Amino acid sequence: MDLSRAAAAALDTADPLAGFRARFAGVEDDLLYLDGNSLGRLPVETPAAVARVVEQEWGRGLVGSWSSWVEQSRRIGDVLAEGVLGARPGEVLVADTTSVDLYKLLVAGADARPGRDVLVCCADDFPTDRYIVAGVARARGMTVREVDAHIDTGLDLDVLAAALDERVAAVVLSQVAYRSGALVDIAEVTRLARDAGALVVWDLSHAAGAVPADLTAAGADLAVGCTYKYLNGGPGAPAFLYVRRELQEQLRQPIWGWFGARDQFAMGTAYDPADGVDRFAVGTPPVLAMAAVEVGARLTAEAGIPRLAAKGQALTDLVVALADEWLAGHGVTVASPREAARRGSHVSLAHPQAWQLTQALVDRGVVPDFRTPDRLRLGPAPLYTRFVDVWDAMDRLRSVLAEGAHAGYPTERSRVT
Amino acid sequence: MDLSRAAAAALDTADPLAGFRARFAGVEDDLLYLDGNSLGRLPVETPAAVARVVEQEWGRGLVGSWSSWVEQSRRIGDVLAEGVLGARPGEVLVADTTSVDLYKLLVAGADARPGRDVLVCCADDFPTDRYIVAGVARARGMTVREVDAHIDTGLDLDVLAAALDERVAAVVLSQVAYRSGALVDIAEVTRLARDAGALVVWDLSHAAGAVPADLTAAGADLAVGCTYKYLNGGPGAPAFLYVRRELQEQLRQPIWGWFGARDQFAMGTAYDPADGVDRFAVGTPPVLAMAAVEVGARLTAEAGIPRLAAKGQALTDLVVALADEWLAGHGVTVASPREAARRGSHVSLAHPQAWQLTQALVDRGVVPDFRTPDRLRLGPAPLYTRFVDVWDAMDRLRSVLAEGAHAGYPTERSRVT
Repeated sequence: MDLSRAAAAALDTADPLAGFRARFAGVEDDLLYLDGNSLGRLPVETPAAVARVVEQEWGRGLVGSWSSWVEQSRRIGDVLAEGVLGARPGEVLVADTTSVDLYKLLVAGADARPGRDVLVCCADDFPTDRYIVAGVARARGMTVREVDAHIDTGLDLDVLAAALDERVAAVVLSQVAYRSGALVDIAEVTRLARDAGALVVWDLSHAAGAVPADLTAAGADLAVGCTYKYLNGGPGAPAFLYVRRELQEQLRQPIWGWFGARDQFAMGTAYDPADGVDRFAVGTPPVLAMAAVEVGARLTAEAGIPRLAAKGQALTDLVVALADEWLAGHGVTVASPREAARRGSHVSLAHPQAWQLTQALVDRGVVPDFRTPDRLRLGPAPLYTRFVDVWDAMDRLRSVLAEGAHAGYPTERSRVT
Repeated sequence: MDLSRAAAAALDTADPLAGFRARFAGVEDDLLYLDGNSLGRLPVETPAAVARVVEQEWGRGLVGSWSSWVEQSRRIGDVLAEGVLGARPGEVLVADTTSVDLYKLLVAGADARPGRDVLVCCADDFPTDRYIVAGVARARGMTVREVDAHIDTGLDLDVLAAALDERVAAVVLSQVAYRSGALVDIAEVTRLARDAGALVVWDLSHAAGAVPADLTAAGADLAVGCTYKYLNGGPGAPAFLYVRRELQEQLRQPIWGWFGARDQFAMGTAYDPADGVDRFAVGTPPVLAMAAVEVGARLTAEAGIPRLAAKGQALTDLVVALADEWLAGHGVTVASPREAARRGSHVSLAHPQAWQLTQALVDRGVVPDFRTPDRLRLGPAPLYTRFVDVWDAMDRLRSVLAEGAHAGYPTERSRVT
């Protein structure tokens, strides 16, 4: 691999997604933004789309705009289903937060497996996933089985398989691990879980928009995910949930709100869940925030997951190669799978002073992400990140380490978030 | 009462809140908007506030803006606590939908009353309230006691008292009934429930911003409410929840997300709920939508609940008086409490062809609200509705009835929502 800056620039020239960069605001700044896995950038179209909803639909249309707004959750869900998740129309809904959606689907899944008293999750999974599992288990008197994953290379499927038996009702698992970026095979895990009679609730937060989910092909039953990372839906944007069509009529979620009821405005006396994925809705979605999700979802679908995933692999390959070449001598190790096909679109680097390195990089115009205790996470979102951005960011990291500039920054203990 | 248009105009001239009308977009249109109890109007400041969050905070600030965003839920909560709800700082949080918030507080309340197996709600309450109660009861094997309320004049407290005994864990009740507008005395109901050892979860959706809640003075324990009605937070805007300070450490809600955890970014292995009202948070709030809630909350607080409530009573008094004078002969009856102190800021009128009347009014530039099967609901939001608006709307309704113009409109059976 040619590790020169000219080689990186040549990759940009050949990049079929290069044109998408101009469709994001702020890219003309010098900032090297490698945190798209935490918060995606603002699409250029979004301010006008949000302003139209605020000023025209709300300000002028008032309640008359509800006819459009009530379709939002399903409309954006269908964009994600077809263009991002490899699911069918009517299987995806945008509503609530990832945590609330995970709660709804996990309870629905556990209810669908009566007599089983174990929930399985991964000990290294994102906190909210483990917390939601713990809360549901506690409320139902169930036991949690936490499966260990390697902090750098992810979950070993043999270890998972050993945890699956006739007591397991449901498994919660991230397709892409939030720290290491390790990718799990949805089809394989689904098969393992199904053999044990359990349902899997996938968390696609760090995966959707970066790697293929292919939910239908993989036979996935349930999934949730974030829209403000690779889907560029804006800070705190409503999440999505997916329920395989064949399961929808069998499942009931626990929060019986009017948006999940059949014939919502009939305001009937008893709750009767709507047909299809609508029954997993609860209350009125935040329409302004939804407008931004729609732009991000359409943009991602337009770029196409195959191209995004290929570029994500190439970008993170470059991170890995430069880390090996430039940073290994400074005590930095690659804390993600080395094989591109086994990771998402971010790479973690381990270093004892990762927090100080993070601060030093920010002061030098690079935005990485820090994950406690010693991980520097680099997420070059393929939709708007150039190969030269990765090269320049790694070059600045190399300089910081060579100069020891990070030594002057406070340690994590003093961190205020 | 002088029922001339000149008298209505004189009330506008004397209105201490008259200046607030110009702070809303679209009021220069001829539209007579009497549906602020369903969706409040757009404040003039909101588009710029939302655009600043989109373009500056997200577009430019990117992840650096989280330091401001993580404060939103509490910051807006404190504005509502002090300026709208009569609660103390640190008792109110803006997050999730009203339905999800109600679910969280109801489960927390039921958990705090172990051994009790009954939930009480009102048979005429808003569907989502009854549905949430039914769902929680079903999941926990509890029984629902539905208390009958008079469809026009609201809940009789003797009837409620008779339903409260040592089996009741929690009561869900709206301060202002969504259909009739009947107002319930929070202090009195809280006392009744406390005597029975039960907790009340108040739904303030149709009350907040229109009538005083005085939660601290009333000794209220738990409440939720909508921000897109009288608080003008925008379609589907995140809701608020209130938990009395003294109860916060005793209660735990069921959806254990990372925003409710102590030291969120430490990402500890076990869920440890945050101190204070923060433990009732779950996931990342929709930041764009929250920005609009903040404008609406501050505007309402600036106007002040005493003035808003007084004007709301005067506006609805005018509706009642004009209905009696002009419409009674056409078969219209007042389906709300006649005493102003016993209702919120909306009035329902009953007529067998209410759905046709609604359509006829919309075609004549009046936006009322229809509630099945025969209610025409008029909500003159005091922050931007003039007395002449009420007079003109009622005058158009009188003309429709006099001309029989509504007869030409389709019946509700053909309604598509």
